[in-house]
Amino acid sequence: LSNWPLVQIVHRPGVLDLAWGHPDPSLLPLEAVQRAARRALDDYGSETLQYGHPAGPGPLRAWLADHLGRLEGRAPDADEVLITAGISHGLDLLLHHIAAPGDTVLVESPTYHLAVRILRDQGLRLAPAVTDEHGLRVDALRETLAGLRRKGRRAKALYLVPTFNNPTGVSLPLERRQALVEVAAREKMLIVEDDVYRELAYDGPAPPSLWSLAPEGVVARLGSFAKTLAPGLRVGWLTGPRDIVAALRDGGLLDSGGGISHFAGAITAALCAAGDYEAHVSGLRAAYGARRDALHQALEAHLPAGSRVTRPGGGFFVWVRLPEAGPSAAEALAGAEALGVSYLPGERFYLDGQGARTLRLAFSLYAPEELREAARRLGQAWA
Amino acid sequence: LSNWPLVQIVHRPGVLDLAWGHPDPSLLPLEAVQRAARRALDDYGSETLQYGHPAGPGPLRAWLADHLGRLEGRAPDADEVLITAGISHGLDLLLHHIAAPGDTVLVESPTYHLAVRILRDQGLRLAPAVTDEHGLRVDALRETLAGLRRKGRRAKALYLVPTFNNPTGVSLPLERRQALVEVAAREKMLIVEDDVYRELAYDGPAPPSLWSLAPEGVVARLGSFAKTLAPGLRVGWLTGPRDIVAALRDGGLLDSGGGISHFAGAITAALCAAGDYEAHVSGLRAAYGARRDALHQALEAHLPAGSRVTRPGGGFFVWVRLPEAGPSAAEALAGAEALGVSYLPGERFYLDGQGARTLRLAFSLYAPEELREAARRLGQAWA
Repeated sequence: LSNWPLVQIVHRPGVLDLAWGHPDPSLLPLEAVQRAARRALDDYGSETLQYGHPAGPGPLRAWLADHLGRLEGRAPDADEVLITAGISHGLDLLLHHIAAPGDTVLVESPTYHLAVRILRDQGLRLAPAVTDEHGLRVDALRETLAGLRRKGRRAKALYLVPTFNNPTGVSLPLERRQALVEVAAREKMLIVEDDVYRELAYDGPAPPSLWSLAPEGVVARLGSFAKTLAPGLRVGWLTGPRDIVAALRDGGLLDSGGGISHFAGAITAALCAAGDYEAHVSGLRAAYGARRDALHQALEAHLPAGSRVTRPGGGFFVWVRLPEAGPSAAEALAGAEALGVSYLPGERFYLDGQGARTLRLAFSLYAPEELREAARRLGQAWA
Repeated sequence: LSNWPLVQIVHRPGVLDLAWGHPDPSLLPLEAVQRAARRALDDYGSETLQYGHPAGPGPLRAWLADHLGRLEGRAPDADEVLITAGISHGLDLLLHHIAAPGDTVLVESPTYHLAVRILRDQGLRLAPAVTDEHGLRVDALRETLAGLRRKGRRAKALYLVPTFNNPTGVSLPLERRQALVEVAAREKMLIVEDDVYRELAYDGPAPPSLWSLAPEGVVARLGSFAKTLAPGLRVGWLTGPRDIVAALRDGGLLDSGGGISHFAGAITAALCAAGDYEAHVSGLRAAYGARRDALHQALEAHLPAGSRVTRPGGGFFVWVRLPEAGPSAAEALAGAEALGVSYLPGERFYLDGQGARTLRLAFSLYAPEELREAARRLGQAWA
């Protein structure tokens, strides 16, 4: 019994496993959470343990409104923000509400592969939204939507990670963001913006969120403390249309159970109120930025000629496009693992079987010297 | 912003509000949780903050397996237990997996009204399972199932609270439990057992859970720390069929986010491992048992002649059946509130509009002397 694991990650001795998009445990804010837990239980007293407000802990929503207002120039009001048990839960809750099994949902391709699993578990009909090296192609989206209409279908929603994309690291340019919210508004298609990496920006601020650019009703933006504080807290949020926030807040799940991340959310609120959030995230930007640089530079040095390696402005991932000759990412995987390095082949992130010559490398879990060694081993694998 | 509420409950000054089935804040284990938070962050270190195991924190599942084994004579193994964000979340997750919109689910009537909302939000077709003063009638259930079959329908699941029922306080007798699991096994209908009140037993142990009586595959039992420790933790569990546990554990939601109550679950594990659980629950049994007695006795003294008042063996609720003459529960509510007492009219708990002459009174939130005063005011309301 005592061997049942506490955490999700499985370490493979000898393998630098760049498949995991997890924060480095040594960068988690253990002491700040210790202090915040004490402070929440002292300051909020038994309210920390009671049924929470269905929309989430008031102090956390208030801090978020203020924080997002300063960060993005648009502060959600009380009716526009809902605390979730992380983005995965927010996505699950949101899609259950706005769509039914058999409905069509567009997903940028490539995109976060486990979000695709959440949508598939709901019986949704997924269709790819085409991207290029700058992210979603809005011109292609218009064609896709017109094609659906000709078949008598429409897309209820579009899921994408427009900022420091998982897996590619790319951020959608401002003009495309503006064009995208216009298309979505006209088509009455809800944009589901997965915005988890926004604050892990290494070369200056991220582009504005789709939510901050769009008129009311067009974008539901999912945010999280998973990368900026700790994934185990399971505290995220949704900023979005008032009718959706109200329906989720007043629905059976949150009416019956109260706020779904009440305890962890109250502790997060205490941490943020103490000023520990900004200090911690500032440290993460420096640490992860250095890792990004280390991996990117070493890949440029070691990967075969003709490889293209993204240098993301933020987030956790470098995306590699291999030259046309030589083994594909999936074909090279076993050999790479024998050399002590691993990654996720790019096909995983496509809806439509593309990506054989791409791979995703997470630089979040390892120190710069380990990342340089990982790049060296990858170079060997393709040598 | 600073006024956004932290908790769900809304206090109405001057009203003894027996509508809320919430634990008394003064009975929440604030100090034990303080200690456990420190201990978890010390002992488990950064694992407390990493992505959690999708099935829930191993130490918590291991403690539960041992605890349930001693309590019920049947210990779930690792593949039979999943940590949820409370029963509401477990119910939502489970029904999304086993049923689709339009499917028929039976619900004992009366039953927990907010569970009904969770099921309705999923677009399920609900039908009542008939009860009498001892709980679900298995003979009537057989007829209901036969009736559905004649219409070409079948029930995917039956939801009930067989132990210290919400709202009636009644526990299903052993013979009916045995008959019920036999019927469900034969009909291949999953029993969804909401078992939240099991350990708050005031007159000796609760009857065995349906889960402990049934063969593999027949019962999914939902348990929780909401009443025994604190609802704000949002830590519950499911013990049930291996195929269901595996599908939920390996599904997109928990694969993407990791365990949904990881942080609170790790702290709960530390609290339980320290031995604080048994001590706390033993204190709750004494405190809530005294409240049950106080309210029950005072109601017998003050309610109009011909009223029937249940004396539940556990849980949070007394159920009142009013005499045929005089105002109904809904009709008397405004007058009762003017006198400074409130309750939930019984209709809320029925699927089929019955219950006009019943009401639910929660004795969990108030001290014995307040409950006696509440009963006096209720007597006045019907005088």
